Amino acid sequence: MIPGRLTVVTLGAYDVPALRAFYESLGWTSNTPGGDEFAAFPLGGAVFTLYRMDLLAEESHSPMPPRGAWRAVTLAINVEREEMVAEAIDAARAAGAQIRAEPVKRDWGGVSAYFADPEGNVWEVAWLPDSRFDERGALIWPY
Amino acid sequence: MIPGRLTVVTLGAYDVPALRAFYESLGWTSNTPGGDEFAAFPLGGAVFTLYRMDLLAEESHSPMPPRGAWRAVTLAINVEREEMVAEAIDAARAAGAQIRAEPVKRDWGGVSAYFADPEGNVWEVAWLPDSRFDERGALIWPY
Repeated sequence: MIPGRLTVVTLGAYDVPALRAFYESLGWTSNTPGGDEFAAFPLGGAVFTLYRMDLLAEESHSPMPPRGAWRAVTLAINVEREEMVAEAIDAARAAGAQIRAEPVKRDWGGVSAYFADPEGNVWEVAWLPDSRFDERGALIWPY
Repeated sequence: MIPGRLTVVTLGAYDVPALRAFYESLGWTSNTPGGDEFAAFPLGGAVFTLYRMDLLAEESHSPMPPRGAWRAVTLAINVEREEMVAEAIDAARAAGAQIRAEPVKRDWGGVSAYFADPEGNVWEVAWLPDSRFDERGALIWPY
């Protein structure tokens, strides 16, 4: 039996201190001790961590990907109000993120935009009409 | 300002129905309408979704990765008891997952194992001593 939960998302990082500094510049707090191997950011209902690429590859018996390759994964930050998408993208731009897509209306009924961190990991900022959140900021999936 | 939350994790999928079937065979429930473009699994404090690779690449202005390439990302399922790691890995094996690493004690103090889905996305099943969870199954980060 496999519990239906997604507790931690870990990105392999080539430069953990640099990526950690980028995410701290977004206003996020890493409350783990410093170091060049690992950083953790509790983000609402899930924990977001950075782990040195070679260590993650070794531990998971996976080959290291080419630096800069897209990982075919997006991590989303859902927000309460439509205008918060643009506000978040402006904040990401100010922090040095690469903006991949400015806020636009999507076929699925909401508004979203994308930015990438300095190693090419892609985040979406998304607004859905009538979305609700629990007290930790986790999205209450309506379906 | 960028809210510190990670609400949705989306994997680009080459074959959404096949991957959806794999995750349903783990005992997880996708409560979205069927279709070959999208599937969503609410997993505790975060929502896990599959989205057709070309659509995700287009929406996020990212190049499609080679099929089968590792994404340098791991998604974790934290469990309450040490023996649940082996139980989950056995269940994943029975569902046809590729086991990347059998359960072993890790330098960071816990036990973990890794499996990959049919498109090579890597999951970790992890146990940490004294870990606690909220009522949705989200890990309460202790630090």
